[in-house]
Amino acid sequence: MAAAAPPPPPAPVPEPAMGLPEDSPLGHPIFTRIRLATASDVPHIHKMIHQMAVFERLTHLFSATESSLTSTLFSPTAKPFYSFTVFLLEVSPNPFTDSVITDPSFTPLVKVINLDLPIEDPEKESFTINPRNDISVAGFVLFFPNYSTFLAKPGFYVEDLFVRECYRRKGFGKMLLSTVAKQAVNMGYGRVEWVVLDWNVNAIKFYEEMGAKILQEWRVCRLTGDALEAYGTTD
Amino acid sequence: MAAAAPPPPPAPVPEPAMGLPEDSPLGHPIFTRIRLATASDVPHIHKMIHQMAVFERLTHLFSATESSLTSTLFSPTAKPFYSFTVFLLEVSPNPFTDSVITDPSFTPLVKVINLDLPIEDPEKESFTINPRNDISVAGFVLFFPNYSTFLAKPGFYVEDLFVRECYRRKGFGKMLLSTVAKQAVNMGYGRVEWVVLDWNVNAIKFYEEMGAKILQEWRVCRLTGDALEAYGTTD
Repeated sequence: MAAAAPPPPPAPVPEPAMGLPEDSPLGHPIFTRIRLATASDVPHIHKMIHQMAVFERLTHLFSATESSLTSTLFSPTAKPFYSFTVFLLEVSPNPFTDSVITDPSFTPLVKVINLDLPIEDPEKESFTINPRNDISVAGFVLFFPNYSTFLAKPGFYVEDLFVRECYRRKGFGKMLLSTVAKQAVNMGYGRVEWVVLDWNVNAIKFYEEMGAKILQEWRVCRLTGDALEAYGTTD
Repeated sequence: MAAAAPPPPPAPVPEPAMGLPEDSPLGHPIFTRIRLATASDVPHIHKMIHQMAVFERLTHLFSATESSLTSTLFSPTAKPFYSFTVFLLEVSPNPFTDSVITDPSFTPLVKVINLDLPIEDPEKESFTINPRNDISVAGFVLFFPNYSTFLAKPGFYVEDLFVRECYRRKGFGKMLLSTVAKQAVNMGYGRVEWVVLDWNVNAIKFYEEMGAKILQEWRVCRLTGDALEAYGTTD
């Protein structure tokens, strides 16, 4: 009998706490999640690093492969937050229903954002994680511990912060960087640091608005390539 | 009988391989050793960090204690070269006879240097490690892994390079930094990086002579203190 059939599962709706009924007049909700990346995310991370190199006009310095990223970023002994760590930003038009807790040290951060207009992602196919739930990768932040001897405290150094072009100017970069800052505070760390190109005035404004100081007097020194290799054979 | 008395032990002399007979016309030999620091070196490291803060006129940023340095730098799980690492420079007028291999990953580096004049160390008492063998601490370098996504390789970031005042301008800073560079090459790492104050022309010249490039366009951004703490309470 048809009456004996179980009722259909309820359609997934945003949680009430998020204040977003399906017919919200506020616009176009987008569900976001920040989680620890794993080795299976390397193809997406590799593509984003290449896009970053193109944006920074530094493709001549780009030599990462999926294989080299996997072995250096996701070695079996590396512990998130104590070594190289990647937070991945995922977006979806639907609520997240899958569990992605890969490490007890970090609970994924889920937020829903209201946009005036929906985002058209021309590269959606290349950045889809789970076609069934319509989850795409929108950005990442790569960071690792550094240390201040004056404070006698570790901190985090942010090597890369990247949001894919169609997702920019919507607060996602701030969301990624804030998550690193919050993690630093939770761990009792003293600083979060990164570098910016001095001509990138938009980025500088953005970082200052987030509370960062730009240290004008310091210059980065880099020993690399042949100049570094020469030290391998010294006594 | 006087003849039965054992002959006096031979006076310690530099090993022949070092080419330094006692009556060398070359000057005053000083024996140097670079080794991994351990928790028992913290009192000396702490004093040197304080001297560095004085030199950089940054004592207002100095809040390290021996206890905070010990717990953050020498935690039992930290593995040299994969976390915060300190090389200590020891000097002695005599050859080193004690063994200081504290970790299989690094064999201490011993060298003998000829000086025109002997070094008078006004703080010798505060920096003596082993009074019997007349070993003093002359400097240190603190570094830890960083990561380049473009190279998909780790590197080393040098947070502090310090040589005590009476030991400066004798090549000891170069010796410490070269040892970090050599370790990076041995581990297949891609870069060694650090920062320098843009007005410190002597340091810049020294680093350039060592093969480093000074990156003029990049600025360090720092989120710390209250501005960082504010992120601890955000959603």
